[in-house]
Amino acid sequence: MVPVGIVGANGFLGGELVRLLAQHPHARVAALCAGRSAGQQLSDIRPSLRGPADGPLEAFDADLLASRCEAVFLALPHGKSAEAARELRARGVLVIDLGSDFRIADPAAHARWYGREPGAPELLDSAVYSLPELTGPPPADAGLIANPGCFATALALTLAPLAPALGEGTEVTVFGVTGSSGSGIEPQAGTQHTLRVNSFTAYKPLRHQHLGEVEQLLARRGAVPRVRFVPHSLPAPRGIHLTVVLDAATVGDVRARYEAAYGEAALVDVVDGVVPMGAVLLSCRTLLGVEPRGDDVVVTCALDNLLKGGSGQAIQNLNLVRGWSETAGLPVVGSWP
Amino acid sequence: MVPVGIVGANGFLGGELVRLLAQHPHARVAALCAGRSAGQQLSDIRPSLRGPADGPLEAFDADLLASRCEAVFLALPHGKSAEAARELRARGVLVIDLGSDFRIADPAAHARWYGREPGAPELLDSAVYSLPELTGPPPADAGLIANPGCFATALALTLAPLAPALGEGTEVTVFGVTGSSGSGIEPQAGTQHTLRVNSFTAYKPLRHQHLGEVEQLLARRGAVPRVRFVPHSLPAPRGIHLTVVLDAATVGDVRARYEAAYGEAALVDVVDGVVPMGAVLLSCRTLLGVEPRGDDVVVTCALDNLLKGGSGQAIQNLNLVRGWSETAGLPVVGSWP
Amino acid sequence: MVPVGIVGANGFLGGELVRLLAQHPHARVAALCAGRSAGQQLSDIRPSLRGPADGPLEAFDADLLASRCEAVFLALPHGKSAEAARELRARGVLVIDLGSDFRIADPAAHARWYGREPGAPELLDSAVYSLPELTGPPPADAGLIANPGCFATALALTLAPLAPALGEGTEVTVFGVTGSSGSGIEPQAGTQHTLRVNSFTAYKPLRHQHLGEVEQLLARRGAVPRVRFVPHSLPAPRGIHLTVVLDAATVGDVRARYEAAYGEAALVDVVDGVVPMGAVLLSCRTLLGVEPRGDDVVVTCALDNLLKGGSGQAIQNLNLVRGWSETAGLPVVGSWP
Amino acid sequence: MVPVGIVGANGFLGGELVRLLAQHPHARVAALCAGRSAGQQLSDIRPSLRGPADGPLEAFDADLLASRCEAVFLALPHGKSAEAARELRARGVLVIDLGSDFRIADPAAHARWYGREPGAPELLDSAVYSLPELTGPPPADAGLIANPGCFATALALTLAPLAPALGEGTEVTVFGVTGSSGSGIEPQAGTQHTLRVNSFTAYKPLRHQHLGEVEQLLARRGAVPRVRFVPHSLPAPRGIHLTVVLDAATVGDVRARYEAAYGEAALVDVVDGVVPMGAVLLSCRTLLGVEPRGDDVVVTCALDNLLKGGSGQAIQNLNLVRGWSETAGLPVVGSWP
Repeated sequence: MVPVGIVGANGFLGGELVRLLAQHPHARVAALCAGRSAGQQLSDIRPSLRGPADGPLEAFDADLLASRCEAVFLALPHGKSAEAARELRARGVLVIDLGSDFRIADPAAHARWYGREPGAPELLDSAVYSLPELTGPPPADAGLIANPGCFATALALTLAPLAPALGEGTEVTVFGVTGSSGSGIEPQAGTQHTLRVNSFTAYKPLRHQHLGEVEQLLARRGAVPRVRFVPHSLPAPRGIHLTVVLDAATVGDVRARYEAAYGEAALVDVVDGVVPMGAVLLSCRTLLGVEPRGDDVVVTCALDNLLKGGSGQAIQNLNLVRGWSETAGLPVVGSWP
Repeated sequence: MVPVGIVGANGFLGGELVRLLAQHPHARVAALCAGRSAGQQLSDIRPSLRGPADGPLEAFDADLLASRCEAVFLALPHGKSAEAARELRARGVLVIDLGSDFRIADPAAHARWYGREPGAPELLDSAVYSLPELTGPPPADAGLIANPGCFATALALTLAPLAPALGEGTEVTVFGVTGSSGSGIEPQAGTQHTLRVNSFTAYKPLRHQHLGEVEQLLARRGAVPRVRFVPHSLPAPRGIHLTVVLDAATVGDVRARYEAAYGEAALVDVVDGVVPMGAVLLSCRTLLGVEPRGDDVVVTCALDNLLKGGSGQAIQNLNLVRGWSETAGLPVVGSWP
Repeated sequence: MVPVGIVGANGFLGGELVRLLAQHPHARVAALCAGRSAGQQLSDIRPSLRGPADGPLEAFDADLLASRCEAVFLALPHGKSAEAARELRARGVLVIDLGSDFRIADPAAHARWYGREPGAPELLDSAVYSLPELTGPPPADAGLIANPGCFATALALTLAPLAPALGEGTEVTVFGVTGSSGSGIEPQAGTQHTLRVNSFTAYKPLRHQHLGEVEQLLARRGAVPRVRFVPHSLPAPRGIHLTVVLDAATVGDVRARYEAAYGEAALVDVVDGVVPMGAVLLSCRTLLGVEPRGDDVVVTCALDNLLKGGSGQAIQNLNLVRGWSETAGLPVVGSWP
Repeated sequence: MVPVGIVGANGFLGGELVRLLAQHPHARVAALCAGRSAGQQLSDIRPSLRGPADGPLEAFDADLLASRCEAVFLALPHGKSAEAARELRARGVLVIDLGSDFRIADPAAHARWYGREPGAPELLDSAVYSLPELTGPPPADAGLIANPGCFATALALTLAPLAPALGEGTEVTVFGVTGSSGSGIEPQAGTQHTLRVNSFTAYKPLRHQHLGEVEQLLARRGAVPRVRFVPHSLPAPRGIHLTVVLDAATVGDVRARYEAAYGEAALVDVVDGVVPMGAVLLSCRTLLGVEPRGDDVVVTCALDNLLKGGSGQAIQNLNLVRGWSETAGLPVVGSWP
């Protein structure tokens, strides 16, 4: 069993890593770190995690992590991974970062999308942005893996196989929704239950920061359509759902394009019709639905933001880099309810 | 106090009519009818309606309604209004139909959108489709008012002021969401709580029946863009929210167009930025949000499907046809929570 | 129209006061104050309140409030009312406090339940704790009215008519639930949407601070049963529901006792069976349900925590002290959905 | 891999069996049956179950099941298991019934609680009611296992260790809540989303049918307190939570009693304080919380109605009867969110 560490174990992504790794056939958790909560029992903060989380949370300590772990997952707020990754890489530890610090390779693009310089620019060249169905398995000698964002995963899986047909600059309007766990566990106005539970609202219209990594990924493959993406806050705890309407004449046989791209993919399924978000919750699967109608084609995409859009994909990346089964320890069948 | 009747008082729209009319300054409920539930107390079925709903529900009886009421609201399932309207009109009663039977004037178009012939074709010519902010107040001698559909109200208020700039045939993609009350009170698979509450799904993509009346309304005003509308089921009980992304170069100053159209409207407000659906719940208001960004403009629209999208607009129509204040008895300030 | 002020207009209780007073036949809002948010538009913070909330929020200023208002509602966090009330009373303004600072007359009891001394002990003697169905209308010359807590209102309405039969010291176990708006608008761990929405938990078991005012109210009427009250956090935005199981032999004819107590009450209804919480939402009504079964009687109570349990009761108190209709401006028919 | 069948695969309990068995190390699904849905793909009805559910659902056929399966789970509506169990037992197949047909051994008691005679009275003697933490592992030669009800599991785990101290006839009042999945997948009034989502209501107060099996279990162990149980409908999809307040003088050291009973139990954990329902969702664990306060002790219990209260416990029973690890294939760490 390969020993791994989780930094940021008290958040939603960190908690899902704890939960999934408790069942993993090849990896075991050897260290759980959390900043402010160091010294507390994880199960006192996140009582669902009793058992595998026994023992106090530790403060981040690169030496200690390096001595105990072969790989470390960073599940930290945006901008907090750079320093931790630098220290761990200096000690030769494999780092899988679930944050945004290493997703965009170009420092100027990073600054444009995140409003600040990257925290560890010297590591950007070696960071591997890994969305395996599109970028292939990360190399076995990867030292720093940048795990894609939740919306970015959905946008890229939906658009990449169609981008060549759409062509450079073609406008594609994508409507997305996300559950509240996407905003993290820290209480804030946007996730106050009373106001969230019966409402629905667009946010960051046309300027969500995940567009940066999607553009980068599409550019590496060729033509980049102009993606007009409007995300919305859903009154649900988890899940992502996208809807796109495309011109059939331009885009051609969408189902065939998806089959060609994902026919061998263990975690992406293509179906006729629309896909309900409920069908992927608690699973690591992405569902793509294709519904032609007259001159148009309606494409919908659903995934669990904390699994395929976060912790599940991070473990998928660990599996691939270590040469294990791609889906080791990952739930493929969802729970709805 | 003008005596009015409600047919279908046990449904969601019927219940909202009961609730609102209990506070109306000029109208009072003189008859409550319900099919299967006749003989029961409304408050036994809908306990929130205690008080104004005392006394047993009655079976539909046109003579009785005509003897007691000057106006009758029909809040029946689709296709059930035709016969009731025919009988009531034959007795000279003003009918305000909240269903779809009289919304589309052209029998062929009706058949195309609803998959059946209109039930009372002889009344179509005299029916007044009334979305007052766009069609003006219904004439004082109107005998049959067709109240718009919930999504149709939102689509028309959003698109009508922009249609001349968009021009004939221009594609406009609209993403919409609706709360579960839009599916009515009868239990069905789509509103089963367990499966609905954490999910989200598109339905009837590009073929929602409300498009028929929107096209008709737009055609009467001039150019008709090609509306690609994808509605979605929201895990919330009420409310409608639309999102549209438009080319700024084509559509021009959206805010100015809306101000020109709705500057005098008591129930439509235009704001900068996006509009959260919560802000209109339990109110009869429509909010339109305009957020320009680079070459694009993001427009969002929110209304309460049971009020401005249903019972509130029906009372607004009664107010106007009787010459009362347009907002008499209607809540303008919402409740969130 | 009597001019009134609202201090703490940006919270949930303050917002409901704004909403309700916008429709009040005898009072109008003449001042809206908020601490941190002074200078902002209320509708920018609470967009549902557009219209009556136009104009910037003001900082609390007793002179200004006294010059403009005949009565002022304080809707502030616990412990923040004392100083504001002192200043307003010194200027002769009628104060209706929705907080807890003046509910408990005995300073020692206050300190025991709230963990701190009362902030304005010199005002306690003149403060009128007013739960009108039990304490009668407040006197016309009242200067400071302490509005009951949400759970306290439900507990007192449920238990007071039965207390004489139960007798001193008899154990009564009450199970209560509350919607998340009871925790206020400030984001906090207990109202983080993701964790709240599918969960349910007891909190402050047997030690909720509202028990203090309930014991005081019961003691003023005679025998005080020993109330074992366990409140729970409900995954819903608003509403309170209580359940009590009583020995029929001890408590006698519960329905008759309630009818005797509330037969004339405009805002308390007694029904056979159980009462769903949904039936009182958005109304100022309390429903009491009585279901005998063998040797036992099951009593359930439902009210809206922000209305009968808060802002609605505060307006009821204003109505009574001014001699207006008890229900002026108050919704009696609820909205479910 | 032992081949097993699932009858009623299209319901909530059936679906959870499919999901869990897809990961089971010793059993594999060899037949999926469903009544009305026979011939359809399970994944067309329950799209979360894609993969393990490929191939059409079959109609119930005892010969076929016996030829293919060593054990069959019956996840059918109440009253529908009797005939299926009879046919399968006649063919020597191990039957694990998740319904209520075989839970109560005494036909008269069955009739009293369910309002009808048991459907297969000749099998009652051989049926093993198995709640393993209390009744021990079922014997290896068991042919028919009656899996406890969801509320019954929670009630029994909470009360059984305390019953000797409470003594015969002592009143114990228990308040319970359940998520909507407890009502099954068929749409019905109580699970209509619009009305359920913001409400809360007691139902079947003091007369829930699960009390029958709890009384039977307690009687087999000795003293039977008089359980006054009031279940409530929660606006959440899954989970069960109980609250009990006990006299400390009577019940003694509750934590010690639970530790004695469950110290070795893999699926029951005892903690100090209260237990949030969220902490057990999607896990097969039961949490018991003990919070003493003065003369009283507050006990709370939480479990997932579909797992420890249903399909998870059914697999636990299979594991035990086959001699596998008790928790094989069962999630112990929950997912919250």
